[in-house]
Amino acid sequence: MHQPFNLLAAFDRVTDYWSPRVIGQVNDQLLKIAKLKGEFVWHAHENEDELFHIVRGSLLMQFEDGEVLLEEGDVLTVPKGTMHNPVAEEECWVLLIEPAATKHTGDVVTERTRSLEDQLG
Amino acid sequence: MHQPFNLLAAFDRVTDYWSPRVIGQVNDQLLKIAKLKGEFVWHAHENEDELFHIVRGSLLMQFEDGEVLLEEGDVLTVPKGTMHNPVAEEECWVLLIEPAATKHTGDVVTERTRSLEDQLG
Repeated sequence: MHQPFNLLAAFDRVTDYWSPRVIGQVNDQLLKIAKLKGEFVWHAHENEDELFHIVRGSLLMQFEDGEVLLEEGDVLTVPKGTMHNPVAEEECWVLLIEPAATKHTGDVVTERTRSLEDQLG
Repeated sequence: MHQPFNLLAAFDRVTDYWSPRVIGQVNDQLLKIAKLKGEFVWHAHENEDELFHIVRGSLLMQFEDGEVLLEEGDVLTVPKGTMHNPVAEEECWVLLIEPAATKHTGDVVTERTRSLEDQLG
């Protein structure tokens, strides 16, 4: 009935880059995991903060006013309305926490955009 | 401006068992860390789910209908209204995610109960 999951093991199910998968929920927030490699796309989430937890590797988070290199074990919340662009020079594993309402690439739509239905697949 | 924190390093600031510290926020949820050792107290949070992420060690989560041993890296959401009692045979480090409104020991108050003000200290 009370079924935990192992965070590292959950990444075995992730095969595509930049395609988050929903693995859990706490209140109105979804837990998602994703493997990242390369550059994503500049975007903002108008109404929702988005938390990044680096599970493996490192991630450069670019902002309009600078950039932050996130190393393994680092946690950063990108505040709502903040333009950001994640760049992973090498493969990086991240845990994301954000509301169910959050759109993958904000109001930007590219070939990388994944719907929530995609993320539940 | 955009300041990450390292999850493992954050535990350096935790000196007391069963005294969660707020280390971050995403939307209406607080991120807290705690060191646990021994048995806590049976309680439930009527309106809030509570997520446990085992950062180091292991934790036995007792429920009225059974128990689950959580190992390092495991994640479990205790649904709202569910009686639970965390037991750590050895020191265990956990990351908690729960709303700001969550009371530490639910409606039970013991000498272990910490207010939100305590947790921000």
